[in-house]
Amino acid sequence: MIQVAVMGYGTVGSGVVEVLNTNQASINKRVGEDVNIKYVLDLRDFPGDPVESKLVHDFETIVNDPEVRIVVEVMGGVEPAYTFSKRCLEAGKSVCTSNKELVARHGAELMEIARSKNLNYLFEASVGGGIPIIRPLNSSLTADEIEEITGILNGTTNYMLSKMTHEGLDFDSVLKDAQQKGYAELHPEADIEGYDACRKIAILTSLVSGQQVDYEDIYTEGITKITAEDIQYAKKLGRAVKLLASSKKVDGRFCAMVAPFLIGEQHPLYSVEGVFNAIFVRGNVLGDAMFYGSGAGKLPTASAVVADVVDAAKHLEESVMGYWTSQKLELSKISSARSRFFVRARGDAGKDAPAMSELFGPVEVVTADVAGEFGFVTDVLTEEEFAARAAKTETIINRIRMEG
Amino acid sequence: MIQVAVMGYGTVGSGVVEVLNTNQASINKRVGEDVNIKYVLDLRDFPGDPVESKLVHDFETIVNDPEVRIVVEVMGGVEPAYTFSKRCLEAGKSVCTSNKELVARHGAELMEIARSKNLNYLFEASVGGGIPIIRPLNSSLTADEIEEITGILNGTTNYMLSKMTHEGLDFDSVLKDAQQKGYAELHPEADIEGYDACRKIAILTSLVSGQQVDYEDIYTEGITKITAEDIQYAKKLGRAVKLLASSKKVDGRFCAMVAPFLIGEQHPLYSVEGVFNAIFVRGNVLGDAMFYGSGAGKLPTASAVVADVVDAAKHLEESVMGYWTSQKLELSKISSARSRFFVRARGDAGKDAPAMSELFGPVEVVTADVAGEFGFVTDVLTEEEFAARAAKTETIINRIRMEG
Repeated sequence: MIQVAVMGYGTVGSGVVEVLNTNQASINKRVGEDVNIKYVLDLRDFPGDPVESKLVHDFETIVNDPEVRIVVEVMGGVEPAYTFSKRCLEAGKSVCTSNKELVARHGAELMEIARSKNLNYLFEASVGGGIPIIRPLNSSLTADEIEEITGILNGTTNYMLSKMTHEGLDFDSVLKDAQQKGYAELHPEADIEGYDACRKIAILTSLVSGQQVDYEDIYTEGITKITAEDIQYAKKLGRAVKLLASSKKVDGRFCAMVAPFLIGEQHPLYSVEGVFNAIFVRGNVLGDAMFYGSGAGKLPTASAVVADVVDAAKHLEESVMGYWTSQKLELSKISSARSRFFVRARGDAGKDAPAMSELFGPVEVVTADVAGEFGFVTDVLTEEEFAARAAKTETIINRIRMEG
Repeated sequence: MIQVAVMGYGTVGSGVVEVLNTNQASINKRVGEDVNIKYVLDLRDFPGDPVESKLVHDFETIVNDPEVRIVVEVMGGVEPAYTFSKRCLEAGKSVCTSNKELVARHGAELMEIARSKNLNYLFEASVGGGIPIIRPLNSSLTADEIEEITGILNGTTNYMLSKMTHEGLDFDSVLKDAQQKGYAELHPEADIEGYDACRKIAILTSLVSGQQVDYEDIYTEGITKITAEDIQYAKKLGRAVKLLASSKKVDGRFCAMVAPFLIGEQHPLYSVEGVFNAIFVRGNVLGDAMFYGSGAGKLPTASAVVADVVDAAKHLEESVMGYWTSQKLELSKISSARSRFFVRARGDAGKDAPAMSELFGPVEVVTADVAGEFGFVTDVLTEEEFAARAAKTETIINRIRMEG
C-alpha cells in the first residue's frame, strides 16, 4: 500500500480526496498497488467530514512518517508551502502540487532536490487545471523545437471577456457577475491584472527553454482597460478579445508577454469560450497543436493532481519528471516584440484618419458606430515604434495588439 | 549511440529521417545519448538521396543486427509489416509505428510480446497524426474513468466537409479538388467511407477499455451521401456536418460508431476545420478536454513517430507503454444507440410535416429553400426506433444524426 498525505483541505484538496475515493479501483489498478490517504493536513477541523479521522494539524506528523511516500501540496501561496515541500523532498517523499506561485518561484530548486534523491516534484495542475500540458510537453513533444506556446490560461478573465462579447456588457458589470457566480474573487487583481496567467506562462516557458524564467520579467497587462466599445470594434473586425499569455522564440530568444489580444477566427484559440482554458503550441516539425479543457474547478484540477500521484506512485524511486535549471533565462526585450495594433482615436474617421496614417504608416480604418471616435489597424510595428508614435498624439483612447 | 532502423521510405519514413536530422541536437540531449539511423529498408533505390548509403533491401539485415535497438515501422498495411514487427520484437528491438491498420488488428499481440521482453511497441502516430493522444491517455488521464472519446480523425473528409460548407460545393467537386491537392487518394474509399476513422476509434476504444476492439464490429458510415442540400440545412440549424468517430460508455458498455453528425457550435469539435484533426475526451472527473492538431502530413506524423523513438530510447529495457489485452471487448449493439435525427423528406412542410410528426413523435421543422422537400429534427430515438419508423414512409431523402 502506498501512503499519501494531502496538505491543504480547501477546494482542490477536498477534490483530490474525492477523486481518489471515486475512482479508487481503477487508480489502484493503474498503479498496481493500493493508494491510500493517510493524513490530511489543515489548520481547521472538519467535524463529521469523512476525512476527520485522518486530519492532522501538525506538519511534523507527515514529514516524520516514513510510511508516507507521496505528499500532495495544495495549500497555495509560497509559504509555508515552500518550506513544507522542500522538507518532504529532503525526507524522501515525492511531491505533487497545483501551486503555480510556488512552482514559478522555486520550481527549479525543488526539482533539483527531487532529482538528486530519485524522487519526483510534479505540477501538472499548476497550469491549465485539468488539461494535460506539462506531461505532453515533457514526454510527447520531444521530437520538436517548440517555437511558440500561447495560452488562454485564466478562466475568470476568459469568462468575463466572453460575457462582454455575447451580452454587450461593460467590464464592471461582468466582474460583478463573475464574483456572484464564484468565478472571480472579492479581490480579483490576480486574475484581471493578468498575474495568474503570468505565473503560468513563466512555468511553461521555463519548461520549454529548460531554464528558470522569473515572472517579474514578463510584461503583463490585464483586461481592466477593455471596454464594451473595444468589443464592438472587435466584432466589426471579426475578431475576439482574449487575454493571451504568450511565449515566442524570435531569433533564438524567447519573448514572453501577457496582454489582451484581438485574435482572428482562424486561430485555434478564437473559439475558446467561458471558463475554459486552452494552450496552443507550435513545434518546428509538429506544426500547430492545441490542448483544451477545464482550466480550473475542484474536480478537473484534482484530476490532474491525482494523475501526478499515479505517476509518482508508479515511479517511487525513479525521477521521471521534466525539469529546468535554476540558471536564469534572459527573455528578449518587450520593446522589440512585433505585432499589428488596433487603435481607437478621438475624432472623425474622414477628417482625422489621414493624420493617424501620417503618424503610424498605412492604417486600415474601422468604424463601429461609437460617437466621437474611430478605430484603425496599423501594420506590424515593434512595441517601441508604436509607443514612440503614440506619444506624439493625444487622441488615442486605447490600443489592443492583434494576433493571427 | 542508439542505432535505429527505419522500415519504409515513403512519406512518413522520409519525414522520420528529416525530423531526426533537423532536431538532432535537442533529440540527443533529451535521450541522453546519440540516436543514429543505421538502416533504411525499402524495396526501391534512391540514388543521390542522403539515405542512399543506409538503404537496405533485405529485412534480415535489420533483424539480425544486434546493434539495432529500435525499429521504426512506417510501411503501412498488415503484411509484411506484421511479420517484420513481430520478428523485431522477438529479436529484442522496440518498435515504433504509425501503422493504424496493423495496430488495430494485431496491436494486442505485439504489445504482449513487447511486455514479455521489457520492450516497447509504441504507436502515437497511428491516431491523430502529430496530436499527442495515445501517451496522454496512457499517462495523463490516469485519474479518470473515460466516459467518451470522440474524434475528427480523418483530415481528408474534414477538408471536404469544410469546403462543402464554405463554398457550397457538392461532394463530387470537393472530392476532385481534394484529389488534385493530394489530400485524397485516387481510390479514396478508406477515407470517404470512414474505414480510416474506424480503425483509429478502434485503437482508442481498445486503449481506454483495456481490451481488444475489432474494427469490424464498429458501425461505420462515410460521407458519400452528404450533399450540398444537407449542408444548407446544417447552416440553417447553426450546425456543422462532421465525420465523427465516437466511443461512449453507456450503462457500463462502450458503444462505438463512425458516421457524419450535425454538431452544434457549443461543441469543441465544431470549429475544427480543414485537414485538422481533434479528439474530444470526457472523463468522469476531468470533464471535457480536447486535443487538436495536424492529423496527417509528413512532418507532423513523423514528429509523433520520433517522439516514440525518444521514449523507446530512454527506456531501452523497460516497458513504459500502455496496452490492452487480446480479450475481445463486446460493444453494445448499435441498435440501442440514441440520438436526435435530422431528416429530409419529400413534400411540403405545411402539408406533410404533420404526417412526419405522427410517425416520429414531436419534430422541429427546418426549411432551407430547397424545392420539393423540407427538413425536421426528431426527439432522441434509438437507431432501432428510428429505422422502424423510417421504414413506414417512402418520403425520406436522407438523415443525419445530431450531437450536442
